[in-house]
Amino acid sequence: MSPQLHTGSETSTFKVPKCKKVLRVDTINPQVREVQYAVRGEIAIRAEELKSELETKGSNLPFNEIVNINIGNPQQLKQKPITFFRQVASLVEYPDLLLDENRDKAKLLFASDAIERAKILVNACGGSVGAYSHSQGIPHIRKNVAKFIEERDGYPADMNKIFLTMGASAGVQLALRFIIEHSKVGIMIPIPQYPLYTATLSLYDGQAVPYYLNEEKDWGMDIGELKKSVDEARRKDIDVRALCIINPGNPTGQCLTEQNMREVIEFCQRERLVLLADEVYQENIYMPSTRPFHSFKKVLKSMGPSFDDVELISFHSISKGMIGECGRRGGYFECQGIDKEVVDEMYKISSVSLCPNIQGQIMVDLMVSPPRPGDESYDLYKKEVDDIYQSLRRRSNLLCDAFNELEGVTCNRAEGALYLFPRVRLPEGAIKAATKAGKTPDDFYSLAMLNETGVCVVPGSGFGQEKDTSHFRATFLPPEELFSEFIDLLKRFHQGFMEKYRD
Amino acid sequence: MSPQLHTGSETSTFKVPKCKKVLRVDTINPQVREVQYAVRGEIAIRAEELKSELETKGSNLPFNEIVNINIGNPQQLKQKPITFFRQVASLVEYPDLLLDENRDKAKLLFASDAIERAKILVNACGGSVGAYSHSQGIPHIRKNVAKFIEERDGYPADMNKIFLTMGASAGVQLALRFIIEHSKVGIMIPIPQYPLYTATLSLYDGQAVPYYLNEEKDWGMDIGELKKSVDEARRKDIDVRALCIINPGNPTGQCLTEQNMREVIEFCQRERLVLLADEVYQENIYMPSTRPFHSFKKVLKSMGPSFDDVELISFHSISKGMIGECGRRGGYFECQGIDKEVVDEMYKISSVSLCPNIQGQIMVDLMVSPPRPGDESYDLYKKEVDDIYQSLRRRSNLLCDAFNELEGVTCNRAEGALYLFPRVRLPEGAIKAATKAGKTPDDFYSLAMLNETGVCVVPGSGFGQEKDTSHFRATFLPPEELFSEFIDLLKRFHQGFMEKYRD
Repeated sequence: MSPQLHTGSETSTFKVPKCKKVLRVDTINPQVREVQYAVRGEIAIRAEELKSELETKGSNLPFNEIVNINIGNPQQLKQKPITFFRQVASLVEYPDLLLDENRDKAKLLFASDAIERAKILVNACGGSVGAYSHSQGIPHIRKNVAKFIEERDGYPADMNKIFLTMGASAGVQLALRFIIEHSKVGIMIPIPQYPLYTATLSLYDGQAVPYYLNEEKDWGMDIGELKKSVDEARRKDIDVRALCIINPGNPTGQCLTEQNMREVIEFCQRERLVLLADEVYQENIYMPSTRPFHSFKKVLKSMGPSFDDVELISFHSISKGMIGECGRRGGYFECQGIDKEVVDEMYKISSVSLCPNIQGQIMVDLMVSPPRPGDESYDLYKKEVDDIYQSLRRRSNLLCDAFNELEGVTCNRAEGALYLFPRVRLPEGAIKAATKAGKTPDDFYSLAMLNETGVCVVPGSGFGQEKDTSHFRATFLPPEELFSEFIDLLKRFHQGFMEKYRD
Repeated sequence: MSPQLHTGSETSTFKVPKCKKVLRVDTINPQVREVQYAVRGEIAIRAEELKSELETKGSNLPFNEIVNINIGNPQQLKQKPITFFRQVASLVEYPDLLLDENRDKAKLLFASDAIERAKILVNACGGSVGAYSHSQGIPHIRKNVAKFIEERDGYPADMNKIFLTMGASAGVQLALRFIIEHSKVGIMIPIPQYPLYTATLSLYDGQAVPYYLNEEKDWGMDIGELKKSVDEARRKDIDVRALCIINPGNPTGQCLTEQNMREVIEFCQRERLVLLADEVYQENIYMPSTRPFHSFKKVLKSMGPSFDDVELISFHSISKGMIGECGRRGGYFECQGIDKEVVDEMYKISSVSLCPNIQGQIMVDLMVSPPRPGDESYDLYKKEVDDIYQSLRRRSNLLCDAFNELEGVTCNRAEGALYLFPRVRLPEGAIKAATKAGKTPDDFYSLAMLNETGVCVVPGSGFGQEKDTSHFRATFLPPEELFSEFIDLLKRFHQGFMEKYRD
C-alpha cells in the first residue's frame, strides 16, 4: 500500500480533488474495510428496518414482531436475570443502601447475603464502583476467579495470570493482537466459526487458516484435518502460530471429548501453536453424562509436566451460561505457559484502556462465587439457575426436532452452547433465484424467512461452511411458551419456500 | 519485518530453538512492544509496591498512605458520586424495585423521579440492562445526547452520527484506527499530550506529528507552530491527515478562546485535516467568565456553511466533569462532516465488539439529561454538583499557589480540566544524579517524591515537553481537608531535594 497524500499545503502534491473528504471509504484503514461481520450484517440491518416498520401504525407486514434468534442475547428474549446477582449489582451502585442506618429499609428489598457481598465488593473497589481499578482487574475478584478455576479443575491458578476483560471478545482480540507479529502470521480457526475470529484477523492483518469441523461426526475435531490444514498453510509460507477452538462450539454446539482434547494439546505442542480456548459456553452443557465439559487447562494439567510448556489462553464470560449478562460486558482470560514478559506487556496494553468496566468485573465475581448451600439466597439462586438450564435443554431439543422434520433439513443436536446450525438442502430453483438476486443461497433463504415470518437468523456463510452447502444459525432462546407458535411459523415458511422453488 | 517461522512441522524450517516459547517479547506484535504508557508506567508500578508494603505490618516507610495524584480518578480520592445518578443506576439493576407492589418500599430509599427515570431506561434497553443493545448505543440515549448537544451549542445534532463508547478512549482509538490507512499517515498531537494518543499511534502504526503548546502563553495554540509542524512532516513524506486537540487541556489545563478555535478550524480546512476534539473536560471550567468552554462543533457551525465540509469528531465522557464515573467506562463521539459511508463502516466495526456496556450507556443518559428545576431530585443534584465544582476550583488554586511558592517551580493556573503541569528547574547536581541512575531528570525527581512522601505524580516526559525542561502532572483531586497536610509534605520534600542536589 503506497502512501497517498491528502493535503492542501504547498509543500506537497495533490493526489485527490480538493472537494473530496479526507476520510472516505477508499482512504480509511483497508483492514477496517475488509472486515466482514455477518451476525450484525445485512439481515440484521433489515430486521431493524422491519422493527421500525412494525412500530409504525398501519404496517402491512404478515407478522407482529421480530424474533431475534440471530444473536445469543438471552435477556432480550425475556430470560430473567439471577436475583442474587442483580441485588448485589443494585446495592453496589448506591452505597447509601449499605449504611447501618438504612439496614432495616434495605432488608425489606434485599437479601442479607446480597448486602454483605455488596459491602465486600465496594470495599474491594476502594470505596466506589465509579473509580478506575487496577488495569488487570480488581485483585480481590481475580483471586476469586483463581479459586473458581482451582475448584473446577483441581489444579492451581495464579491471579497474576488472570486478566478481567470487557467480555470474552475483548480478551480474544487482545490475544490475537499480540500473536500477529506480521501479516504472514496465521491463526487456525474452525469452520464454521464465530465471526469475531475472522473479523479480528482482518482488522489486525493476520491470516485465517481454516480447519473444518466434521458435521457427520457431531461437528467433532479431526487431528488429520488439523495437520492437513497447518501443513498446507505452511507450504504457502504462512507462519502458523496459534489454534483457536470454541468449546462448546459456536455455531456448532459440539462438546469435545477429553480424548479429543488431549490429541489437540499434543498437536499444539508438536506444531508449536499457542492454543486459544474460547470456553464461554462451559455452563451450557446439555448432555452432561455423555458429553461433560472439560476445560483445556484441566486436560493440559492432567497430562503432566511435559506439557507445561504448552502456551494456552482460556477465555470465559458473563454473557452466556445461565447468567446471560452480555450487555454488561464482562469476562476474563487465564494465561497458562505464557512467558512472564509477555504477560507484563499484556498488562501494559490493558493499562492504555485504563480498566475493564467495574460493573462487568463485579458480575465476574458473582459468576465465579455464587451463593453456597446454607446462604440465604442459595435456594432461590439454585432454583433460578436450574429452571433456566432445564428450559434451555428442552428448547434445544424442541427446535432441533422441529428442524429435522423439515423437508431437506438435517440438524445435529446441541451438546452445548446456545445454537443450532441446521443444514438446508435447497432446490435448484432457489439456488438459481439466489444467484439472480446476487446472493448466496443461504442468504437468500434467510432473508426470505425474515421477510415472511419476522424470524431473524444468521446465514451459514457468515460462519463458513463446506462448499455447496447451506446452513443457518438459530439460537433457541425465545421464551418457551412462544415455541410452538414460532415453530409453526417456521414450518409454514419452509414448506412454502420449498413449494415455490421446487425443481 | 520479515516473517520468522515458528514451527515443528517437517514442511518448514526451524528458525528458533524448540525450547523457546512461541509467544515471546521478541515475537509479539512489534507495535505492542513499542507502546509507552507513562500514566501507568514505572512510577505507578512502584506506587503499587509501596501500597502493598504499607499494608504489611511493620513497614518502615516515612509515610502512611499513597496519594494517587497521577490519575484523574476522582472517586478513588473520595469524591462522592451524584446521588440521583447512582439511584437510577441502582434501580435499573434490580427491576423488582420498579414493580408497583414494591413502590412503597422503594420510595423509602429512592426518589420518585429516579424511579421514573429508571423505568424509562429499562424500557429503552428492551427490558433488561443485561441484554446487548444496538451496537451504536441505545437509540433513546443517542436521542438524548443529540438533544444535549443541540441545547449546548444551538445547532442541530443527528443521533445517527453519534456513537456511544466505552469511555472516550475507546472512541479516540476507533477514530485513529480509521484514519491510519498506512504507516506513513501522520496525526498531529499536542505536546504535552495525554499519552493515550502516542500509545494508540504506536499500536496502530501511525506517525505522531507533534506540535508544541506555548507554556509562556498559558499553554495556548499557535497557528504558526501548527503550520511549521505540518509542513515539516510533509517534507518528510508523512501523509498528515488529522489534528488532535484536547480542550480543556490534559495535562495543561488550557481552555481555548473562540478566536483561537476559529483559526484552528480554518487551518484544518486549508490543510485538509480531520479535527479530533477531545472535550472530556468540558464541565471542568474554572474561569468561566474569561475562559468559558466552547465546543468545536458550535464554533465550526457558527462559521457558516462554507465550513460544513470540515471533518470533525468530538469526544465526551462520563469519567470527568463533576460526575467522575470513570470506572464505569462510558462516553460518546459525534461525527460532523464525516462521510456517510465512513459512518456506516464505524457501525460495522462497533458491531464486532457487540455493544458498549449498558451501565456506561445509562450514565451517559444521566449526564446529558440530569434532573431539571422542579424535579424532586433537582435541589440535591444542584447542590452536589456545585459543591464539587467549587471545591475543585479552590483546590486547583491552592495547589497551583503551593507549586508556585516552591523554589525553581512555575505553574500555570488551570483554566480547565483536573490537572496542573508545573515546570521544575532542577539543580545540575540532580540532573547528573538522574543521568547516573539512567533516568530522565523528571523521572528521577518524581520517583524521589514518591519514595519520600507517598505522593504519586506522572513525570512530564510521559506527556512530552520542550527539550531540557522538567515537568510533572498532578491532579488536584485529594480531599480538601487533607490538602494542607499533603502540601506540607510536598514542600518539605522539594526543599530537601533541592538542598541535597544544590550546585
